[in-house]
Amino acid sequence: MAYIFFGEISGVIEGDTFQSRKELSKAGVHRPLQGGIDGNSIQGTSSIVLSGGYLDDEDHGNEIIYTGHGGNDSNGRRIKDQSWYSYGNRGLLISELHGHPVRVTRGANHISKFSPKKGYQYGGLYQVTEHFWKKDEGKFGVCIFKLAKISALSSTDILKGIIDLSPENGIPSKRIPTTILRIVRDTKLSKAIKELYNYTCQVCGIRISFNGIGYAEGAHIRPLGTPHNGADAIGNLLCLCPNHHVMYDKGYFRIDENFSLIGIDGSLSIHKNHQIDIVNIKYHCDLFNFEQ
Amino acid sequence: MAYIFFGEISGVIEGDTFQSRKELSKAGVHRPLQGGIDGNSIQGTSSIVLSGGYLDDEDHGNEIIYTGHGGNDSNGRRIKDQSWYSYGNRGLLISELHGHPVRVTRGANHISKFSPKKGYQYGGLYQVTEHFWKKDEGKFGVCIFKLAKISALSSTDILKGIIDLSPENGIPSKRIPTTILRIVRDTKLSKAIKELYNYTCQVCGIRISFNGIGYAEGAHIRPLGTPHNGADAIGNLLCLCPNHHVMYDKGYFRIDENFSLIGIDGSLSIHKNHQIDIVNIKYHCDLFNFEQ
Repeated sequence: MAYIFFGEISGVIEGDTFQSRKELSKAGVHRPLQGGIDGNSIQGTSSIVLSGGYLDDEDHGNEIIYTGHGGNDSNGRRIKDQSWYSYGNRGLLISELHGHPVRVTRGANHISKFSPKKGYQYGGLYQVTEHFWKKDEGKFGVCIFKLAKISALSSTDILKGIIDLSPENGIPSKRIPTTILRIVRDTKLSKAIKELYNYTCQVCGIRISFNGIGYAEGAHIRPLGTPHNGADAIGNLLCLCPNHHVMYDKGYFRIDENFSLIGIDGSLSIHKNHQIDIVNIKYHCDLFNFEQ
Repeated sequence: MAYIFFGEISGVIEGDTFQSRKELSKAGVHRPLQGGIDGNSIQGTSSIVLSGGYLDDEDHGNEIIYTGHGGNDSNGRRIKDQSWYSYGNRGLLISELHGHPVRVTRGANHISKFSPKKGYQYGGLYQVTEHFWKKDEGKFGVCIFKLAKISALSSTDILKGIIDLSPENGIPSKRIPTTILRIVRDTKLSKAIKELYNYTCQVCGIRISFNGIGYAEGAHIRPLGTPHNGADAIGNLLCLCPNHHVMYDKGYFRIDENFSLIGIDGSLSIHKNHQIDIVNIKYHCDLFNFEQ
């Protein structure tokens, strides 16, 4: 399988321009010379190029509504439903569920005020946040993806876990505090731990999957951030379903040194290649070691 | 039960100063004239005043490590373990798990560079993001809370669902993309729906609870934001456990017009006072209505 590189390309920054698809490919930003989607249906999509564009595409800069791949004849006329199994659409779905970033490049012929005058312009990293199905003018089904720009907010802005939002559907003139309850950070290492366990929860064995694509969360044993300063390391990570992630973070259950669970029945499933640092297990245990 | 007001006080903005606890109380920012915690053990904590301070307190401005209430004799000397059942500590725990904002005021005698020279200064809204147990100098157990400031980021910055973070434990000079996979917004209405169902998932009936305090998530049926523009309204909300929230948002299962589940077994439990807008159910159903 060809190697796919997710994330920033060394030496290329947002706003960089390229004369041609060949140049864009050579830089490693987007390898195929023709196709708009770089990646495959197993590892995911790492890059898209916006050019021309479908009727349903919307480019709001930080937010892009992107029509998937396929369903057209050789003249670009839609003649059938798109498929979630085509390499491009399935790749985007994998990137959404597994949390891979997607590089976005805009071509001059992409109809958007964010497009360059000529050639191609790298627009930065985006995250696929949604996928859904839409009937194109009531006839053919198309696969739609929503991409949102990964912005450069500082960790201190975000790691608090809660952010005050402006209203979306509220009264515009009034500031309505809308809070975020849970954020789940996805680091390179948390991706590795999820892959090791094939997106299966180490506590309950559940594997949330959509069309074969798993969803799980990387949970830090000793918490990141002040005052715990846990490491983002494999030995400090667990692969959990969202329910057990919340429960572990809040101390609803703990894990003892023999990997038995305290507070709920059962014991932790551990892959032979997963070396959990017992010091971290002990740290978490002490955090919630009180009589309830 | 006394009425507790969570959130911003009309006419009071961050940075406002008050001569005395009496003035602070009159403004409605923090009602008790003595106690540092305003609220109760049923609805939660709505406000704290930082003054004097415990050994374990840390004030980093945007992030506060706060020692809970109790365990001291009348001279302020710690003589026993603190309790998670004291009104203040349990109130803070409820505010953490239910997502209530907490007003933070600093007194002049609070040892911190963020303290006012004299009197009291309102420091804005914070969220309780963590609670944990700590042995004070190896003797008595104390209840520690972490509070993080709710910042005024715009919805377009945040609603994308994914945010690029600076490294915490990585190489400081290198920008490591750390992404957020899931954000769960907690609006006033989503709090209402969670209370209506007593934090019980409408799909599986699970009630994640810690010491009797429930945790659930308010899930929008027709998604908020572009291009769906669903309403933040009771008729567009469900009370779900984190697992079923992810699964519903990603289309792993759908709900038909008779409230039977499609994709998984079962049917939706609906409270008699919960009027779900069937148009929203239909909208979500169409989003994921394709052959897999």
